Amino acid sequence: MTPSDREPRPGRAASTRRQFLLGGAVVGAGAAAAIGIDYALNGGREDAAATASAQAPLNGTVTVPFHGVHQAGIDTDAQAHGLFVALDLHDDVDRDGLRRMMSILTDDARRLTQGEAALADSEPELAVAPARLTVTFGFGPGFVERAGGARPAWLQPLPAFSIDRLAGTHDGGDLLLQIAADDALTVSHAARMLLKDARGFASVRWTQSGFRRAHGSVAPGTTMRNLFGQVDGTANATPGTAEFDRVVWSSDGWLAGGTSMVVRRIAMDLEGWDKLDRSGREQSVGRTLANGAPLTGADEHDEPDFEATTPIGFPVIPEFSHMRRSRSDDEGERIFRRSFNYDESPAAGEISDSGLVFVSFQADVDRQFVPIQRRLDELDLLNQWTTPIGSAVFAIPPGCAEGGYIGETLLA
Amino acid sequence: MTPSDREPRPGRAASTRRQFLLGGAVVGAGAAAAIGIDYALNGGREDAAATASAQAPLNGTVTVPFHGVHQAGIDTDAQAHGLFVALDLHDDVDRDGLRRMMSILTDDARRLTQGEAALADSEPELAVAPARLTVTFGFGPGFVERAGGARPAWLQPLPAFSIDRLAGTHDGGDLLLQIAADDALTVSHAARMLLKDARGFASVRWTQSGFRRAHGSVAPGTTMRNLFGQVDGTANATPGTAEFDRVVWSSDGWLAGGTSMVVRRIAMDLEGWDKLDRSGREQSVGRTLANGAPLTGADEHDEPDFEATTPIGFPVIPEFSHMRRSRSDDEGERIFRRSFNYDESPAAGEISDSGLVFVSFQADVDRQFVPIQRRLDELDLLNQWTTPIGSAVFAIPPGCAEGGYIGETLLA
Ligand code: HEM
Ligand code: HEM
Repeated sequence: MTPSDREPRPGRAASTRRQFLLGGAVVGAGAAAAIGIDYALNGGREDAAATASAQAPLNGTVTVPFHGVHQAGIDTDAQAHGLFVALDLHDDVDRDGLRRMMSILTDDARRLTQGEAALADSEPELAVAPARLTVTFGFGPGFVERAGGARPAWLQPLPAFSIDRLAGTHDGGDLLLQIAADDALTVSHAARMLLKDARGFASVRWTQSGFRRAHGSVAPGTTMRNLFGQVDGTANATPGTAEFDRVVWSSDGWLAGGTSMVVRRIAMDLEGWDKLDRSGREQSVGRTLANGAPLTGADEHDEPDFEATTPIGFPVIPEFSHMRRSRSDDEGERIFRRSFNYDESPAAGEISDSGLVFVSFQADVDRQFVPIQRRLDELDLLNQWTTPIGSAVFAIPPGCAEGGYIGETLLA
Repeated sequence: MTPSDREPRPGRAASTRRQFLLGGAVVGAGAAAAIGIDYALNGGREDAAATASAQAPLNGTVTVPFHGVHQAGIDTDAQAHGLFVALDLHDDVDRDGLRRMMSILTDDARRLTQGEAALADSEPELAVAPARLTVTFGFGPGFVERAGGARPAWLQPLPAFSIDRLAGTHDGGDLLLQIAADDALTVSHAARMLLKDARGFASVRWTQSGFRRAHGSVAPGTTMRNLFGQVDGTANATPGTAEFDRVVWSSDGWLAGGTSMVVRRIAMDLEGWDKLDRSGREQSVGRTLANGAPLTGADEHDEPDFEATTPIGFPVIPEFSHMRRSRSDDEGERIFRRSFNYDESPAAGEISDSGLVFVSFQADVDRQFVPIQRRLDELDLLNQWTTPIGSAVFAIPPGCAEGGYIGETLLA
C-alpha cells in the first residue's frame, strides 16, 4: 500500500496541487485556476486589477485531504503548530462506545480539516481557516484491549532506558489526538471541539503543544531547527518515496495502512548547552550548526564520511556523536521523525523550560525504534543535555474512505 | 508627537512599505524592487522564469524598525504570537545597574528585531527570521522608584474590582518585556537571549504567551477573534491617526512619546459560554458573531444605534451589553486594545483553560482605563463568563534613536 493509493492524498502532493476553500466550498485546482487564485501555479501573471486576495492564496484556506488510505498528519509537511492530547477511556466505554466515539470524532476531524464547522460547533466562525489542519488519531494499549483487537507486540510502554527520568506527567494514554495546523487559533478551536465530543467517553490525561517555524517564515522545504539551534530532521525518508512507505506503513492486520507513533517529551538543557563551545556542540551531533552539513561535508544532504580522520588521527565525526550512534547499517532500523519544539513558562529562578516533543513514525516500534534508542541510551554525547521526561507509544490506524471512520478496521 | 516623527516608522507604514532582509543586510523598497522581490507592490507582473522565492517575499524576513520616537509593538499590526515576561529587579541593582541593563537589552532588541544575532548569541541561526519581531519594554512602579524618577500617579496596581479573582500568579512586576512576532520560534529565541542578559539584574516573575491568527491565515487587516468566537478589537483607534496619537501617546515628562500598558489575564469560561444560545451571546456584547456588526447594523464598522428598540420596546443593543457599558460619551475615556488569546493545558477533569491576555495602551490609566473598567465592574453581561485572574500596569517609555537606549529619558 503506497500513499498514491490515497485519493486525493496529502503531503508532498498537497504542497504542489493544493485545494482552496472558497466561501466554504472545497474546489480543486481546476476551479481555482478558473477564478484566478492559483497564482503560484501561473507564475504570477495575473490581471493587475486583480484584488490583493487574488494574488496569493491565503495559507489559511489551504486544506489537507482527510480521507485516504493513510491518516493525514504523517506524510503531511509538518505544520507550524502541533498539539498532542492523550486521553483515558472512561471505565464504562465498551466496544460499541468506542465505535460511537470514533464515528463522532472522525466526523469532527473530517469537517474541521476541510474548513467546515463541526456539527453543533459552538464557535463556527473559528473554523473558517483550516490552515492545513490535520487530526491524527492514535490508539494506546488500553484502547486496543477494550476493542478486543489484536495488540501489536510493540504496543506497550517502551522498555526503561537508563537516561529516562519520566516525570509521570506525560506518559501513555488510551487515545491520542495529534492536532496540527499552521495557525494556533485553528488548533485551539479544533482541540476544543474534539474534546467536547470525546468527553462522554474519555478524559484528558495530558496535553503537550509544540511549534516549528511559521508558514512563510523560511523557504518551504527547509529542515526545521530545534531550540539548540540544530538542523533537526535531515536524515529522514521523503514522503512519497518507496523508502518512506517501507519505513512508515504497516501491512499488519487491522493496522495495514497505519503505523506507530512514539512521542517522547525530551527536556533540553539550554543552560548547559550554551556553555559548550561551537565546535563541541557540532561534535556532539556530527553536523555543523550553520547548515546541518556532516562535519565531513559542505551541504546538509552530503553523505557523512565516518572514516575521515583529523590530522592527528581522530575521527572527524566522533564515534559517540548523536548522528553516528543513531545511524544503523541495518536498513530495517529506520524511523521517520516529525518533532516539534516546546517552550513553557520557566520554573522559579529559571529563564526557560524547553525541549523537543520528539515524534517518530515507524511500522514496528520494537524492530525500528527500540534498537536506535537502545544505542543512544548506551552512549550518545547529546545525552548530556537531553533528558526524556515523558514517553508514550500509540498504534496509528489507517485512514478511511468517505462514509467510513478512523478505527473501523479494528472496531467494525 | 506623532508616529510620523519616527523615521522609519512601524505599524501601518511598515505594512505597505516593508523592508526585507537579504542575506543579513537590510535593504529598502528600492533595492528590493531592483532585484524583483517586491512582488506585492508590482501587482504580480514578474518574469515567469523568476524563482518561487522571488514571487512573494517570505514573511519571516520582514522587519519592523526598532528606532523611533515611540517603541514598536504598540502601533504595529499585532503579530501572531505575543509573549509577556514580567521580571523583578534584584535587590542590589541601583540606578547605574538599571542603565547598564537597559543598554544591553536595547542592544539585544535592536539586533534581534532586525534579524541579526544578539551579541554572544548562543543560537545565532535562530535569529535569521525576525518575522516582524518587536520587543516592547515596560517599567513597573518598582523600576521607576529604583531609578529615582517621577512616578506617574497611575503607575500602581489597579484599584480592586469586585469581579477580580486575582490568583497571585500573574500580577505586577518591575520590568515587562512584550516580545511579539509572527513566528513562535523567533519569539522563543528572542525571549531566551533577552532573559540571559537580564538575569544578572532581574529574575522572572511571571510569563504569559498568547496568540492570534497566523500571518497569511486570514486577509490582512481582519479584526482578530477571541476564543468565544467574537470579533474583538473593532472599536479601536487606527494607528497613524490623530485619534490614535491622542489616545495612546503621553506627553508627560520622561514618558513623553511613551504610554502605559494594562495587562489583564482574563479567564474565559468556554463551558458556560457554549451553553448560551447564539442570540444570548450576541446580546451580551451587542454585536453579531458572524461579522461583529452592531446588532443594529450590517457591517462590522457600522455605528451602533443605541436608541433602536425591538417591536416590544426593548433596546436592540441591551443596556447591560459589554459594548454599551464599555463605550463612553467622554472622548477622554478611550483605550487602544491589543490583546492575544491564551490556551493552556487543562486542569484535571477539564478540557480547556483559556482566556484573553487583555492588553490596552493609553496615555493615562486613571483617566482612560479605570473609568471603563469601573463601569464594566458595576455591570456587564459578559462578566458572567469572564474573570480577571491576573493584573499589571506598566509605564512604556518612549522609543530611542540610534545609539540611544530605551529608558534613557528616565535614567540618563
Ligand atoms: C532532544 C533530543 C534530540 C535532539 C536534540 C536530536 C537532534 C538530532 C540532530 C540535530 C540530528 C542530525 C540531523 C538530522 O538528521 O536530523 C539527529 C539525527 C537523528 N536522530 Fe536525533 N535528536 C534527539 C533525540 C533523538 C531520539 C530520541 C532518537 C531516537 C531514539 C533520535 C534519532 C535520530 C536519528 C535516527 C537521526 C538520523 C541519524 C542519521 O541517520 O544520520 N534522536 N538528531
Ligand atoms: C475576556 C474579556 C473581554 C472580552 C471577551 C471582550 C470582548 C469584547 C468584544 C467582543 C467587543 C466588541 C468588539 C470591539 O469593539 O472590539 C469589545 C469591545 C470593547 N471592550 Fe471588551 N472584552 C473583554 C474585556 C474588556 C476589558 C477588561 C475592557 C476594559 C476595561 C474592555 C473594553 C472594551 C472597549 C472599550 C470596547 C469598545 C466599546 C465600543 O466603543 O464600542 N473589554 N470587547
